[in-house]
Amino acid sequence: MAIINENYLKLKAGYLFPEIGRRVKLFTDANPDKKIIRMGIGDVTQPLVPSVVKAFHEGVEEMAHSHSFKGYGPEQGYEFLREAIAKNSYQANGINISADDIFVSDGSKCDTGNIQEIFGNENKIAICDPVYPVYADTTVMSGKTGECNAIGHYEGIIYMPCTEANGFIPELPAERPDLIFLCYPNNPTGTVATNEELKKWVDYALKNNSIILFDAAYEAFITEDGIPRSIYEIEGAEKVAIEFRSFSKTAGFTGTRCAYTVIPKELTAFDSEGNEHQVRNLWNRRQSTKFNGVSYPVQKAATAMFSEEGKKEIQEVINYYLENAKIMRESLTAAGYSVYGGVNAPYVWVKTKDSMTSWDFFDKVLNEANVVGTPGSGFGPAGEGYFRFSAFADRDQVITAMERIKNLS
Amino acid sequence: MAIINENYLKLKAGYLFPEIGRRVKLFTDANPDKKIIRMGIGDVTQPLVPSVVKAFHEGVEEMAHSHSFKGYGPEQGYEFLREAIAKNSYQANGINISADDIFVSDGSKCDTGNIQEIFGNENKIAICDPVYPVYADTTVMSGKTGECNAIGHYEGIIYMPCTEANGFIPELPAERPDLIFLCYPNNPTGTVATNEELKKWVDYALKNNSIILFDAAYEAFITEDGIPRSIYEIEGAEKVAIEFRSFSKTAGFTGTRCAYTVIPKELTAFDSEGNEHQVRNLWNRRQSTKFNGVSYPVQKAATAMFSEEGKKEIQEVINYYLENAKIMRESLTAAGYSVYGGVNAPYVWVKTKDSMTSWDFFDKVLNEANVVGTPGSGFGPAGEGYFRFSAFADRDQVITAMERIKNLS
Repeated sequence: MAIINENYLKLKAGYLFPEIGRRVKLFTDANPDKKIIRMGIGDVTQPLVPSVVKAFHEGVEEMAHSHSFKGYGPEQGYEFLREAIAKNSYQANGINISADDIFVSDGSKCDTGNIQEIFGNENKIAICDPVYPVYADTTVMSGKTGECNAIGHYEGIIYMPCTEANGFIPELPAERPDLIFLCYPNNPTGTVATNEELKKWVDYALKNNSIILFDAAYEAFITEDGIPRSIYEIEGAEKVAIEFRSFSKTAGFTGTRCAYTVIPKELTAFDSEGNEHQVRNLWNRRQSTKFNGVSYPVQKAATAMFSEEGKKEIQEVINYYLENAKIMRESLTAAGYSVYGGVNAPYVWVKTKDSMTSWDFFDKVLNEANVVGTPGSGFGPAGEGYFRFSAFADRDQVITAMERIKNLS
Repeated sequence: MAIINENYLKLKAGYLFPEIGRRVKLFTDANPDKKIIRMGIGDVTQPLVPSVVKAFHEGVEEMAHSHSFKGYGPEQGYEFLREAIAKNSYQANGINISADDIFVSDGSKCDTGNIQEIFGNENKIAICDPVYPVYADTTVMSGKTGECNAIGHYEGIIYMPCTEANGFIPELPAERPDLIFLCYPNNPTGTVATNEELKKWVDYALKNNSIILFDAAYEAFITEDGIPRSIYEIEGAEKVAIEFRSFSKTAGFTGTRCAYTVIPKELTAFDSEGNEHQVRNLWNRRQSTKFNGVSYPVQKAATAMFSEEGKKEIQEVINYYLENAKIMRESLTAAGYSVYGGVNAPYVWVKTKDSMTSWDFFDKVLNEANVVGTPGSGFGPAGEGYFRFSAFADRDQVITAMERIKNLS
């Protein structure tokens, strides 16, 4: 008798975004005339930039001719892309990361989920609350937790609340975790960690033999000086941190699919007899066995964003989204809300008024303003009473949405 | 202290293909003047067909403009592709599979590995010997096995030998498995299972509440009547089988990346209290949480292979590879080898002479004929003494390779 992975039964109702989709569908079915503005899912709306499109077409054309056709590529990604990443995203900033440390994939969602496979189930996982739901859900699915309790926390996970009081940067946990998920610029709060704050975490990990799983999917949105774009800007991080980066938000690749994971050669973990193993080798084995690399034309397209022209074009798009975020911050502040994020991130994190719950605010904003946002409680119980607006919509939609929200009863 | 997944330490040396790559590199470094012919990895060489290239470019162009840009797509794949698959690969052959049963992915290697995540570690897995190494390796990585024994079998896996004696179709196992990996047309032996033989397996699974994981990556190469292209041609299979299919070998997508998994709504598995669960829902949860869908232009390109023009073009490429296989079968037979497969599959399975081991034959063929094949023992101990040649090379290379092998000492 085939038995299911019973850890799946511990998962709370649907994943956040399908539930939003369900409520939006109910509303639009009942109100087919209403024009919905979507600021919920963090999905980009601006097209791929010209340099990327050109390279993408060239990649497709290469696949059309015998002399340039590409079959299986390296599971780790093509050297040309890994070199471009190492050079532009790291070495240009004085960070000693080489192409060998980089593993190209089809998404950070996959990578942040799959990474747990190379670690044993005896590891204690620390996760911020609120945060991107994939970290907790995949921890549950892998069997590292018990049941979900009444407030929505899974037994066995070390939750680190991120609140107004701590500026949305978690305190060092009382119980020692083995793996620590951190995400800065943060999803969903849009807040950032300074060098000093990240140093506190790196030092903690070095002292405790913990590994930081650092999700830097939004680094391209950092505008202020003194905010690290990579955890490897912190001394010693190469010994304790894996970094996840994505082309999704940086280059509009949410529908094109390309990302990468960085595992420095210095990073080690242990077996139960205390022997040290290079984490990079384990991930390489996982990827070689369970993954077949990213589509060649997609890798070629991704590489184009590192050209001089590509960088300029990409920056324009990012500036467009950041200007959206600025308009949102200002409008929501003017409307009397407490607003966080949106300066170094494409997300604005809003406190509801009068202690309204996140889902009540979701329904109110949907029904009265016909705007879709994301309930903060969907990212964890500490997000209750908050709401996330994404800055990826078209400018005119952002302006209209803010106008409607200003006029909410 | 972060602890690794110690199951990885049970894995035997490198995955087969990296080891081949290592030996080939040693040889070419030492013999830079020798022209190697590669018939090892089952990788296609013919370019994408014109209909597919056209649709691929169109998909890229859509990403270049606001009005047609696509962000996140459905994790399950776009409806247009799922409908095209259901209609052309199933309904057109009288098989009752709908778009809802289909999950588009970036590769069957990923799918056949990841599928184990939705089943508990208490399940017993049956795997053919020899077979595509990913099934066993991912079973080990998931923690369902003990150590590897002296002959190269992992404790806890039920191995099903496929030999000359049984025509490379395994006997029903003495010990009851919960999950049964079958692959027909077979990799590596190139042999096929008849309706009657597959019926035996479906009936067994129905009787024993087992689930068949049916890898049909090579179905497009079937040329003979009476050989099922899908396990769902067998009555009752929708209750006991998951089918994996790929565009890799069918449409030359090894570097483009697209595949799909079929999980009929009738397929159920159990929790430890005996409650029944739809397997499709579990896979949907897995994919929604750990995967973000396939690149939009790639899905658009894949869909084009189902157009009338696309089907014709694809068939020509498949015929080209099948003609290669025919030349290989005839040449190797004439050279005095016992030869299997190659009629309904792009692989030819050759018995070495004088009981030579597979790796010795590999080295001989590499050193003396400068041809790369795949040692049968790399697919499992029952493959010892056999050798796989892949029919995906260019015609002139196939002819040259066969000439050189004929003249081996």
